[in-house]
Amino acid sequence: MEIATSSKDAVRAQEPGVQPCRRIVPVILAGGSGTRLWPMSREQFPKQLIGVIGRDSLLQATVTRMEGFAGNFDVDAQPIIVCGEEHRFTTEEQVRLCGVDARIIVEPARRDTAPALTLAALAAIADDEDAILVAMPSDHCISNLAALHGAISIAAEYAERGMIVTLGVPPTRPDTGFGYIRIGEPLDDGAHLIDRFVEKPAAELAAQYVAAQSYWWNSGIFIVRASVWLAALQRLNGEMHATCTAALNDGKAEGHFIRPCPIQFGRVPSDSIDYAVMEHIGDARLPCKGVVVPLAAGWSDLGSWDAVWDAMDEDESGNVASGRVVFEGATASYVRSEGGRLVACVGTANVVVIDTDDAVLVADRAHAQDIKQLVTRIREQHAPEAQMHRKVRRPWGFYDSIERGERYQVKHIVVAPGARLSLQMHHHRAEHWVVVRGTALVTRGDDQFLLSENQSTFIPLGVRHRLENPGKVQLEIIEVQSGSYLGEDDIVRLDDCYGRI
Amino acid sequence: MEIATSSKDAVRAQEPGVQPCRRIVPVILAGGSGTRLWPMSREQFPKQLIGVIGRDSLLQATVTRMEGFAGNFDVDAQPIIVCGEEHRFTTEEQVRLCGVDARIIVEPARRDTAPALTLAALAAIADDEDAILVAMPSDHCISNLAALHGAISIAAEYAERGMIVTLGVPPTRPDTGFGYIRIGEPLDDGAHLIDRFVEKPAAELAAQYVAAQSYWWNSGIFIVRASVWLAALQRLNGEMHATCTAALNDGKAEGHFIRPCPIQFGRVPSDSIDYAVMEHIGDARLPCKGVVVPLAAGWSDLGSWDAVWDAMDEDESGNVASGRVVFEGATASYVRSEGGRLVACVGTANVVVIDTDDAVLVADRAHAQDIKQLVTRIREQHAPEAQMHRKVRRPWGFYDSIERGERYQVKHIVVAPGARLSLQMHHHRAEHWVVVRGTALVTRGDDQFLLSENQSTFIPLGVRHRLENPGKVQLEIIEVQSGSYLGEDDIVRLDDCYGRI
Repeated sequence: MEIATSSKDAVRAQEPGVQPCRRIVPVILAGGSGTRLWPMSREQFPKQLIGVIGRDSLLQATVTRMEGFAGNFDVDAQPIIVCGEEHRFTTEEQVRLCGVDARIIVEPARRDTAPALTLAALAAIADDEDAILVAMPSDHCISNLAALHGAISIAAEYAERGMIVTLGVPPTRPDTGFGYIRIGEPLDDGAHLIDRFVEKPAAELAAQYVAAQSYWWNSGIFIVRASVWLAALQRLNGEMHATCTAALNDGKAEGHFIRPCPIQFGRVPSDSIDYAVMEHIGDARLPCKGVVVPLAAGWSDLGSWDAVWDAMDEDESGNVASGRVVFEGATASYVRSEGGRLVACVGTANVVVIDTDDAVLVADRAHAQDIKQLVTRIREQHAPEAQMHRKVRRPWGFYDSIERGERYQVKHIVVAPGARLSLQMHHHRAEHWVVVRGTALVTRGDDQFLLSENQSTFIPLGVRHRLENPGKVQLEIIEVQSGSYLGEDDIVRLDDCYGRI
Repeated sequence: MEIATSSKDAVRAQEPGVQPCRRIVPVILAGGSGTRLWPMSREQFPKQLIGVIGRDSLLQATVTRMEGFAGNFDVDAQPIIVCGEEHRFTTEEQVRLCGVDARIIVEPARRDTAPALTLAALAAIADDEDAILVAMPSDHCISNLAALHGAISIAAEYAERGMIVTLGVPPTRPDTGFGYIRIGEPLDDGAHLIDRFVEKPAAELAAQYVAAQSYWWNSGIFIVRASVWLAALQRLNGEMHATCTAALNDGKAEGHFIRPCPIQFGRVPSDSIDYAVMEHIGDARLPCKGVVVPLAAGWSDLGSWDAVWDAMDEDESGNVASGRVVFEGATASYVRSEGGRLVACVGTANVVVIDTDDAVLVADRAHAQDIKQLVTRIREQHAPEAQMHRKVRRPWGFYDSIERGERYQVKHIVVAPGARLSLQMHHHRAEHWVVVRGTALVTRGDDQFLLSENQSTFIPLGVRHRLENPGKVQLEIIEVQSGSYLGEDDIVRLDDCYGRI
């Protein structure tokens, strides 16, 4: 038996105990909750769920990112998505609208990315697949899919043989917002062994990294066999491995959802993939090698409005506009009108303007990072605009509070075909419903009746009622609430098909 | 008889033919239609009708400006307001809310300020008063009313004796947006004879004017006896005098309104007070002298957002905010949230942000004048935001289009106590009405009935109907319109107490 004399030879060989497998399972890490793209992103409606670039949400773009993959591997048509409890219905709805049939692991609490990837690996293994997981953050943008597929097909070859592989982006500027990967010995196809992961640097250090040409940005995309990840984690953080396993074993399946046991999951330590595993590459406790494959595919983490702006095409004045926007002598201005209003910029330069139904942001480009502090401040002031949009998603559709007065409130309610609200009653308000689209099946007290477009009904205070959409098109109603107290918490739920009682 | 040897002596003497009169009639020139404060001002809702500074509109502030006048003259409690046809109801409503009983002259067409002052002078003379008119633009701001009253009481002494007097503002900067008055021989009490009126100068000339200390800004406030104005005009522009006289003679009175004949008024030549009369001071044709009295009373014409900003108190960072506004690292930013939304400024400097229900302006301070071009452009694009607000005033109150879908529209309708909409019908829409405040008297077909808070009714397509407020408090309803065409022009008016058929 020949002894391997270089790393190149070593990574060409199959790691002991790892069986060949040519199957890729996309894993979408969708547990993010950032508000750096406020006011488009909110705590209850994070970045991955919004259409930052184009019409599709970032989650939708990520879920369909492996479509058309022509590499030498089979891609599982059923990706695994890991998301938070509060976003599960929107996540499911958005994935459904892409025509993708996904397994959705719902985390009962936030525990960062390492437990998320661990749950996905355990779920894949439980399906008898020691597949190659391609784990991707759900809220990044990649403009050149062919280049991504190329990088993944190189990465998958290394992963298949038992390495932990990450995609690294050769840097174009000394960005202090990313972690960096110091590349080691060169391998085939432009790949390198990973020398080490380094944390977000200060500006001076970042400049040195870029000048040295031996540090790449950490894209957050990992390609690793399920068994390899689990073995590495077991050695480095046995507690995380054990608690994640227990949470999944004691969990339950509900339609598309895989729901780990909340009590067990509560015991899972929180950590990122980088901290829990990647920073230990080269560590004596880590049995497998780390490889980084270069990614030159127009990657952006869209980590601020400044980064989003960079990812967009500017006009000849350097302006970028979305929605009803008028420029008069403006240069280098990034403007989005999301609520249908007319946004006019006169003589502005280097500003970001984001107009939504209930909040407007005007920011100087150089201060885009300070939105984090801003959101912290408005959260402390209990402004609802930190938490949620005016339009609130529900498992059955959404409602939009279009007007509020002293003793009344007007909502536009949209119910998906086949969906139904809970059977409920209110102590403090009566409701008038006018159907403006589709057909409603109304339960009011002991009666049940249908209402079609241009018909209306009245739900007196204290009467139990339910709104359903029995039809094939969206149901839309205008609801006028009238009463002394109109808070969302004045709902007594008597029955609910989404388990919200 | 002694011969006057100096102007000082001359202006101390009563002009021949002018009888003594110690009565002041305030005249408010409210025909303005500027959009330089867009999006708060719109073509159909000009600057004087909005609360630029404080809660009261500029018109309201002007109408009550002579209150507490302690000079040696009687101020008529019934000012004369001259406004345009399209603003008459809002003007009347705003004046009523001040508790002022005014005579409102409604101009059937726009003809600039000279015909407006002429109509007011003719109306005053017709009431047997050859009073001292104090003519003031309705859309300026004056912060020190005592100083204004002081200047007016000096000016009125000169006016009483037959001079045409204007208030001039000693300039604090070489502004190119104002006309200037070259002051002549000094008189008593800081007044001067007017040497001549000069037009808005270029920057260099403006700087020379300010350095020379002999040019004051033209405030647009004139103090003159009705008979003196009319005599001057007759000599300088006999056609304007004759046509204005004919228009008023053939006009009619309607409640508070004095309505000149539209046909006669259509013949009136258009001109400003400055061009028609003031620039002829010293002219052989002009029999009376011109006097300028200094005004140091915090005067501003609020001619742009920049000027408005100057009139406001800034915080220690140079920021000015109105409504729900949050600053994060912002300096020198002027921000108004007029629609209840949260407006956040991060790291901005020298920007103006004006947020309204349907339009948002973000402007660099130095380019505040370019809003004129902007509004011209959006008008050419037929954007409704150039013309009107989302909230539309009507003689009976207002409506606000709070939501619009493909085949429905939701309006919040507010009807003043005692007011009634026209008896009407629609060819293309049905309406659902829900009363959320007050009591409605509803006519529907041949029926009439009352609806109180939390009651509703349905007006089928084609059925004639009327909404009235028989009560003592505001009536508020939510109207859901449903139909294939929802334009404002689908109203067949069968009867209207405001003469709109």
